[in-house]
Amino acid sequence: MIKGTTQIRIRYGETDRMNYAYYGNYALYYEVGRAELLRSFGMDYSELEAKGVILPVMNMHIDYFKPAVYDELITITTYVHQLPKASIKFDYEIYNSENILINKGYTTLVFVDKNTKKPMRAPQYFLDLFKDHF
Amino acid sequence: MIKGTTQIRIRYGETDRMNYAYYGNYALYYEVGRAELLRSFGMDYSELEAKGVILPVMNMHIDYFKPAVYDELITITTYVHQLPKASIKFDYEIYNSENILINKGYTTLVFVDKNTKKPMRAPQYFLDLFKDHF
Amino acid sequence: MIKGTTQIRIRYGETDRMNYAYYGNYALYYEVGRAELLRSFGMDYSELEAKGVILPVMNMHIDYFKPAVYDELITITTYVHQLPKASIKFDYEIYNSENILINKGYTTLVFVDKNTKKPMRAPQYFLDLFKDHF
Amino acid sequence: MIKGTTQIRIRYGETDRMNYAYYGNYALYYEVGRAELLRSFGMDYSELEAKGVILPVMNMHIDYFKPAVYDELITITTYVHQLPKASIKFDYEIYNSENILINKGYTTLVFVDKNTKKPMRAPQYFLDLFKDHF
Repeated sequence: MIKGTTQIRIRYGETDRMNYAYYGNYALYYEVGRAELLRSFGMDYSELEAKGVILPVMNMHIDYFKPAVYDELITITTYVHQLPKASIKFDYEIYNSENILINKGYTTLVFVDKNTKKPMRAPQYFLDLFKDHF
Repeated sequence: MIKGTTQIRIRYGETDRMNYAYYGNYALYYEVGRAELLRSFGMDYSELEAKGVILPVMNMHIDYFKPAVYDELITITTYVHQLPKASIKFDYEIYNSENILINKGYTTLVFVDKNTKKPMRAPQYFLDLFKDHF
Repeated sequence: MIKGTTQIRIRYGETDRMNYAYYGNYALYYEVGRAELLRSFGMDYSELEAKGVILPVMNMHIDYFKPAVYDELITITTYVHQLPKASIKFDYEIYNSENILINKGYTTLVFVDKNTKKPMRAPQYFLDLFKDHF
Repeated sequence: MIKGTTQIRIRYGETDRMNYAYYGNYALYYEVGRAELLRSFGMDYSELEAKGVILPVMNMHIDYFKPAVYDELITITTYVHQLPKASIKFDYEIYNSENILINKGYTTLVFVDKNTKKPMRAPQYFLDLFKDHF
């Protein structure tokens, strides 16, 4: 398993008229969570794309327990529980400023060759980053 | 069962550098799908809020099959299969300009009293709109 | 002068906790305004990019008079007053559902060669679309 | 004059298919710039709203010189050059990761009573925060 934690402050433009962070914006926060997890293992997502691999999202699930409000500092904990093969599943937990779990979810992303647009296996240099953790 | 169909054109600002509509934006498109479904039954969502009911999202799931691209006109078909009680589940299918299913998903929204922020049952005037359809 | 009109309904996710369409979202609405204006003259913006021309924004100005609210149907009127050369200036007026002018602004976009990323003059096939109007 | 600096990393969902941060997203980045400037003087914007003052944007201007790309860490420098009266003008400069100025702009926000929705003068407790700086 690999795990990482990052923080985001809710922007005004990300709230809606209920005064909550709009439910669709968590996809952005999850994106930041997984990008920072990969970065902490030495892999910038942009570097992966530069090497010819894109990672479109195959599925997403979110269970919302509580809202986050404007200017709140939320904490995103991101996990990968299984060594990636043709896809990589990220699990997320978001905690509010009182450290209460406000939502959790997952996204599965597939490895795709940027040029041929065909599915591919996770590149070896990518797997090598995490190999001691699974 | 109730069902409605609406169309959306992908905006430039909704694409990402993969050239696809960003995966998080489908939450916005689903929102439009359910708002237009309710409107077709005579209920504007803003009217519901004016009557003291808010509908925060409890969960969301999306399975992505294919991307949509800039300027593409996509079709959102929205269903409610069960008469709402304390919550209402919307199912969605999105079709691209060639009428191919590009993703499907659902959201469950809970009826909440706007003032007390407590869960409540779906109001009778709301249920009455759909009663002949279930 | 060329002129076009299009309508947009404010999405829930585009509002903020003041209950207004977030001020930054008007850039999206202006984008729709100019894309629909070009389309009405037979030029999809995506076609322009397919032909190797991109149009990054050089400047934007917005004067906000009144807010738009959730679910409101706003009308965007877009103008081009001068035949484009190295750049094209679009002027915008947005009217609310009561036909009151709620904001106006402009954006200037520059013609750039997609491959070399160098500035270029507006292509002749582009100018030909509008030539009888200036 | 007051001045503050903050940094933001461009999210994938904030890019567009040109591979650049979408031009409309700078309104969000400017929002972060001014919120962090106020915070550095001991005033959270949410606190201001809790005290009954909202600050809708009256105008915005942006001159774009260069794009920012995915994952780039940009620096926002925010200035207030004049003591606010009925409105407050923020000037912004955004620098890319190579410390090159990529755009600059301003927004003017008006002080509005949250309940009456009428314009008002900047509250004294707000002015007091900055009084030694003008």
